[in-house]
Amino acid sequence: MKLASFSVAGERRVGVVDADARTVAPFDLSASEAARGVVALIERNGAGLPRTLSPIPLGAVTLEAPIPVPSRNIFCVGKNYFEHASEFAKSGFDSSAAAGTVPKHPIIFSKVPESVIATGEPVVIDPAVSTAIDYEAELAVIIGKGGRGIAKEDAYDHVWGYTIVNDVTARDLQGRHSQWLIGKSQDTFCPMGPWAVTKDAFDIETAAVRCFVNGDMRQNAKVSMLIFDIPTIISTLSQGITLKPGDIIATGTPVGVGIGFDPPKYLKAGDVVRVEIDGIGAIENRFAERAA
Amino acid sequence: MKLASFSVAGERRVGVVDADARTVAPFDLSASEAARGVVALIERNGAGLPRTLSPIPLGAVTLEAPIPVPSRNIFCVGKNYFEHASEFAKSGFDSSAAAGTVPKHPIIFSKVPESVIATGEPVVIDPAVSTAIDYEAELAVIIGKGGRGIAKEDAYDHVWGYTIVNDVTARDLQGRHSQWLIGKSQDTFCPMGPWAVTKDAFDIETAAVRCFVNGDMRQNAKVSMLIFDIPTIISTLSQGITLKPGDIIATGTPVGVGIGFDPPKYLKAGDVVRVEIDGIGAIENRFAERAA
Repeated sequence: MKLASFSVAGERRVGVVDADARTVAPFDLSASEAARGVVALIERNGAGLPRTLSPIPLGAVTLEAPIPVPSRNIFCVGKNYFEHASEFAKSGFDSSAAAGTVPKHPIIFSKVPESVIATGEPVVIDPAVSTAIDYEAELAVIIGKGGRGIAKEDAYDHVWGYTIVNDVTARDLQGRHSQWLIGKSQDTFCPMGPWAVTKDAFDIETAAVRCFVNGDMRQNAKVSMLIFDIPTIISTLSQGITLKPGDIIATGTPVGVGIGFDPPKYLKAGDVVRVEIDGIGAIENRFAERAA
Repeated sequence: MKLASFSVAGERRVGVVDADARTVAPFDLSASEAARGVVALIERNGAGLPRTLSPIPLGAVTLEAPIPVPSRNIFCVGKNYFEHASEFAKSGFDSSAAAGTVPKHPIIFSKVPESVIATGEPVVIDPAVSTAIDYEAELAVIIGKGGRGIAKEDAYDHVWGYTIVNDVTARDLQGRHSQWLIGKSQDTFCPMGPWAVTKDAFDIETAAVRCFVNGDMRQNAKVSMLIFDIPTIISTLSQGITLKPGDIIATGTPVGVGIGFDPPKYLKAGDVVRVEIDGIGAIENRFAERAA
């Protein structure tokens, strides 16, 4: 099942997407429930879904990120595909080089909740702040059942679903500040969507993630090629940090980011980045220079 | 003015502390306003404070962190006192060593909101997860007026007040995972309080931060000795990340942490860590082993 947050007539709604019919059927939720995006559904866990109202054409609504404002920073995994770990190490921007080219343990950092934007919204770049802006196509996990000390074999019981994230990164800030939060958390640097899919509707073994810049394919990898798989990530994070329903974990990006080219292919105003994952859909965002 | 969050008769309240009289006078706030802690006051900016009710003895209430659950991760500055940067580099645990012993730019990482606990609450340690738990006494800044691209000379206009944080750290996890989020965000690893002080009531030039482990003084430094001062931190963070009212920025810890000793003096169950800052007060937390 594909579940979207969207706005129509100035109100946020949450609904079921029929991707073939290009419609979305809003759930009968209060405004305060719908304000939380699909978290409103996650927290009904066990109570079943509310009834849906008449479907609306997708063309008549504005999609929002499935969780428009997460209640804490998004967890993100760094260097989690072999060839990407190698291209990043070679780039010279790797302030975590002490951990080796291929990490022995998951590298976890965060992006602030307010960096989240929807598909179709502009990613705002500001040459006065960064001149090395890069894309990172990623599968993101959405936690359903919270918990601490989750064993790998139980990890999927805690997964509610998946979505797509572009972990936009200011490479110069990422290197300069050593810890990655600033380079990863710039305003608008977390395009997410176009909706969430529940775990039963997603095939983690066969799905591939692809990234296109102005139509040119830059990344293409099966998400099953992660160095640290989803059970390992969830188990590692939750050993001492209680996970919550609605937590988002971006699982890492494959080879092909801009910094991996020589010279690097950074993004500039006017570029359009599309990230697609089989079984979910695609997000597409134009990069635009900040108005003076 | 000292402003506290506290609970009494099972309800969260926010009030004005009279530290000499050992009382707190609750504001006349709704339960949903008080639930947010002092953020309820910050967001009234300009509207003045609500009226207060009769003072209650501090001994009759349970103090909570001034912002019990921040709306996003706490920003933290790493290696921001010279001698601490040196002791940390020498410890061998420094996964950010590529940035040099003394950082050229602020190192910013985060702690999850749910790691926050109040003075008096136990910090839970779990030997199965970490055997290298350390204290870090810190001054924390609370943002009042949000903004982006804040100039250093305007930075204090955006400060609402200050509080005390113990940036408890699992050194083994901090090193193992390269990025610091996991080692810094373990459940209960952010004692905060005992209350907030408004900026007019705090003298940043003369105040010192001190840390005691079982009564033994380990850290003692003027907060004015920061490598990157508060205006620099606020300006750096806000260049591309819009700061929000209620954001918390822990400014870094001085020399004297456990890892700086040879052999390291890590914390164990039963230890009591007290962090005090002149003009604010003190927080004190016992470390307790997690129940099996």
